[in-house]
Amino acid sequence: MAHEHPRRSEITKQLARVEGHVRAVKTMTENGDPYVDVLHQLGAIQAGLRKTAQMVVDDHVENCLVDAIEQGQARIALAELTKALKTILR
Amino acid sequence: MAHEHPRRSEITKQLARVEGHVRAVKTMTENGDPYVDVLHQLGAIQAGLRKTAQMVVDDHVENCLVDAIEQGQARIALAELTKALKTILR
Repeated sequence: MAHEHPRRSEITKQLARVEGHVRAVKTMTENGDPYVDVLHQLGAIQAGLRKTAQMVVDDHVENCLVDAIEQGQARIALAELTKALKTILR
Repeated sequence: MAHEHPRRSEITKQLARVEGHVRAVKTMTENGDPYVDVLHQLGAIQAGLRKTAQMVVDDHVENCLVDAIEQGQARIALAELTKALKTILR
């Protein structure tokens, strides 16, 4: 890819945190922790994923999309982004 | 806990799948895969987490809540569940 993705390493770190969080909740269910506590943690993981998606969208719009617009590919790039966002927002 | 949680091992397996999925997406961002592809996968992980939460709620309602109601603790148990669901559904 020609353009920069300045937040890529930050996004990778955020995903590592989410991964560790999921692993911790898996341990909770293995240990027989109360389901209400498990549900709270699942909610926190979802919040972490929403934050990740927001970081990806920001980096994408500020870099990939700006590039695409400059190269006259705005329509295709926006259609792709809209399709991806539908997966996230459903 | 006195009552059974028949789906606990199934929930742990589902969380292991989600964990592996997050790890795979982390590898995608490390490898510089397109952000639109990353967003699609984040959406799929969210769907996997919603499925997990549904499994936990089902097992909780069918077992913990039934127990709590029989022990006259319905009001407290329902308040706890409602609070946990707010975390999930926000």
